[in-house]
Amino acid sequence: MTQTELPPAVPTVVADTPVPEQDSLRDIVDCHHLTPAMEWLDNHAPHVIADELARMDAVTAGMAFRLLDKDRALAVFEELEPVDQQQILSGLRDQSFRDLVEGMDPDDRARMLREVPAKVAKRVLGGLSPHERRMTATLLGYPEGSVGFYMTPEVVALPRNLPVGEALHMVRAKGSTAETVYTLPVVDAGRRLIGVVELRDLVLGSPDTMIAELIAGEPVSARATGSAEKAARLMQGANLINLPVVDSEDRLVGLLTIDDAVEVIEAADSEDMARQAGTSPWSGHYMAAGVFQLARYRALWLMLLLVAATLTVTVTNFFEPTLEQAAHLALFIPLLIGSGGNAGAQAATTCVRALAVGEVRVSDLLAVIWRECRVGLLLGCMLAAVGMVIGTLFVGVKIAVVVGIALVIICGWAATIGGTMPLLAKKLRIDPAVISAPMVTTLVDATGLVIYFTTAKVVLGI
Amino acid sequence: MTQTELPPAVPTVVADTPVPEQDSLRDIVDCHHLTPAMEWLDNHAPHVIADELARMDAVTAGMAFRLLDKDRALAVFEELEPVDQQQILSGLRDQSFRDLVEGMDPDDRARMLREVPAKVAKRVLGGLSPHERRMTATLLGYPEGSVGFYMTPEVVALPRNLPVGEALHMVRAKGSTAETVYTLPVVDAGRRLIGVVELRDLVLGSPDTMIAELIAGEPVSARATGSAEKAARLMQGANLINLPVVDSEDRLVGLLTIDDAVEVIEAADSEDMARQAGTSPWSGHYMAAGVFQLARYRALWLMLLLVAATLTVTVTNFFEPTLEQAAHLALFIPLLIGSGGNAGAQAATTCVRALAVGEVRVSDLLAVIWRECRVGLLLGCMLAAVGMVIGTLFVGVKIAVVVGIALVIICGWAATIGGTMPLLAKKLRIDPAVISAPMVTTLVDATGLVIYFTTAKVVLGI
Repeated sequence: MTQTELPPAVPTVVADTPVPEQDSLRDIVDCHHLTPAMEWLDNHAPHVIADELARMDAVTAGMAFRLLDKDRALAVFEELEPVDQQQILSGLRDQSFRDLVEGMDPDDRARMLREVPAKVAKRVLGGLSPHERRMTATLLGYPEGSVGFYMTPEVVALPRNLPVGEALHMVRAKGSTAETVYTLPVVDAGRRLIGVVELRDLVLGSPDTMIAELIAGEPVSARATGSAEKAARLMQGANLINLPVVDSEDRLVGLLTIDDAVEVIEAADSEDMARQAGTSPWSGHYMAAGVFQLARYRALWLMLLLVAATLTVTVTNFFEPTLEQAAHLALFIPLLIGSGGNAGAQAATTCVRALAVGEVRVSDLLAVIWRECRVGLLLGCMLAAVGMVIGTLFVGVKIAVVVGIALVIICGWAATIGGTMPLLAKKLRIDPAVISAPMVTTLVDATGLVIYFTTAKVVLGI
Repeated sequence: MTQTELPPAVPTVVADTPVPEQDSLRDIVDCHHLTPAMEWLDNHAPHVIADELARMDAVTAGMAFRLLDKDRALAVFEELEPVDQQQILSGLRDQSFRDLVEGMDPDDRARMLREVPAKVAKRVLGGLSPHERRMTATLLGYPEGSVGFYMTPEVVALPRNLPVGEALHMVRAKGSTAETVYTLPVVDAGRRLIGVVELRDLVLGSPDTMIAELIAGEPVSARATGSAEKAARLMQGANLINLPVVDSEDRLVGLLTIDDAVEVIEAADSEDMARQAGTSPWSGHYMAAGVFQLARYRALWLMLLLVAATLTVTVTNFFEPTLEQAAHLALFIPLLIGSGGNAGAQAATTCVRALAVGEVRVSDLLAVIWRECRVGLLLGCMLAAVGMVIGTLFVGVKIAVVVGIALVIICGWAATIGGTMPLLAKKLRIDPAVISAPMVTTLVDATGLVIYFTTAKVVLGI
């Protein structure tokens, strides 16, 4: 995607003006009113149109897409997710197809090619010039989630011993096809990265200054085979708008631009959030997904958690004699395991996030255990005060004391487990976000019951 | 923060090379080894140093900070969170204090000023030149979370009837103090925004072209008093690196830069995640927060949820006769309410995220209800198959049938509630992220028990 594109002929979009919801593109196209549809398309920015297309079924979306003129069609197409791009492509004639695919940035094209069926991919590659084909093929060589997968290979690299004036000429000569010219990597004769200069420094500097003098220290860079999320968070931390990408021999191979970095970070955050709720991460559009598709992404975890919950049946079954002697204990089962689950989920989510943004490291394990244990016990004491009042009101002081003591222990235990599991996962090289709140909750449910019934046996002497 | 800064004299940081954990700055400073500490500071990038300082207590962090030379101190200081900046400031002498504060970008300074005590704020404003003081005061006028709060007021604006060559001269003359010169707003005589040109177009274009010809359509902009998150997501959607900010009369007042937009989006995501786990959002550093502070952010929700859980006690109490006649029903309480809670949490998190990124709108309410209801029933049927096997193994077919039927109804109900509540919240103009998974879980717990016991009464005829 062109990082700096501005939609042509679009009215001022002020971010706090709500889009009027009633006349969506879908409604207009559904009614087969072509003139209002074309007016709508003329009056909205490419990303807004792409968003509307993603919400529509394939046939309607294809119909609406063909109403766009050539230049705007490309801008809209680049904003679509690969799965939606494929739907649009499959409905196009050869000439429009070629125009669209040839106009895309190589990195966006490569990303699309990975998700389309082999037949479509062949048609796409066949329509490219040899130069574009080579560049796309290079990007296809990097695994999904790697920096190389997201980078743009079209970079203007400068030699170090060049005056600023000549460097600007070089940017003018070579810059028109590059996705960005704001960050200009400086390389040696072997194309090894030795520094970075900003276009800003060239423009503001004197024409006779040598490029080498503008280089500020050694460059920050990422390896093409490295993790795209790590590289993106590095850009975020260091406030970089472009990050040079190098191969294993430190040779420049591309640039990771901020718009792709933001996309990577947002995808990672969405994934973390999905995982935290115990659903498999997916990249589709909610409103465009079918019911079976939505169910499929949730079924696995729900089923695993159900099987794990069998443990709670086993525990309750084991303590049935206790439960028979004090039937009122059953009243507080949901309240106790609920509170434990909540305390555990809070700790887990906090620690998963702290790990993701780099505030906590694996080496902090002991410190986190000690911290969460105290936080949990503290919260447990507060809950116990309220829990004992509730218990006394419903069934009397004795069981209320059991509920109170159990709340303190369960909260301390739940927070410790919740805070520790993401760190242990990371230590075992599992994505800590896999430690979902429901997973912690289910684990805490069973152990919480053990704590509750054992406390009851001790306090009530049964 | 300077968007394009590069740390001076820092070795290549390749994103996939892990930082060696053993020699953290804290350990080195704690041992009072000054030479290795200074070496460490020389060898790390400002954002890495800032990260280490944030993990340390105030005294040690202040000690380490004073070891930095003037230029690097500013770069590190700008990377710190306001709360950490304040700790550092309070330990500095007047001259270093003035140097540091005068060197900051006005938007970062304004953000810090909001969080420091009045005494420190007065000291900060007193140390500024009249020009810097005026600019800071302007930013302080915008409410937290607004675009104005995050924008940079130092912008190079161009008149429309200027040739590219002269525009470049203007950028050279005025650009050195601006945070970015990559996006150049074009304004009329009344400073009203009429378009945007990119520095790239000036550099690549011919010097005689008029600025007006380079303007691509009407500008995309955000109002200074509007929501910063909305503006940031607009930039993300339209792939903009800078967004012009206007007042209520469309007059240019600043630029929202991509680094601040990324910060806004990440803060919003962190907040959504915290809320999803039922903790109050906060911006502090996990490892630097005290135990009481951590507990404070979780206590409110945990307490509210405990009080809400009293409903489960009431429901179980009401159905106690049923429970007495079939004591085995108690065995499956945790499993049933657990599954319902999980199904509800999955739906809630999916919908909160879909709302946040704009895939779902309030007008989709009925469609979401219909979708989630079917997804929930589908998942419920799958769980029921397994649940009936578990039930039969433990207590026999009759109760197993009750468990199976209850699972189907509870899952359908939980998914519907979980998916609907965030949309209803948005309709009532409450932040949908407030509908946390624990809130849905607690609500589903009580209603799930009603469904379970009612099913039992009907099926078992008691």
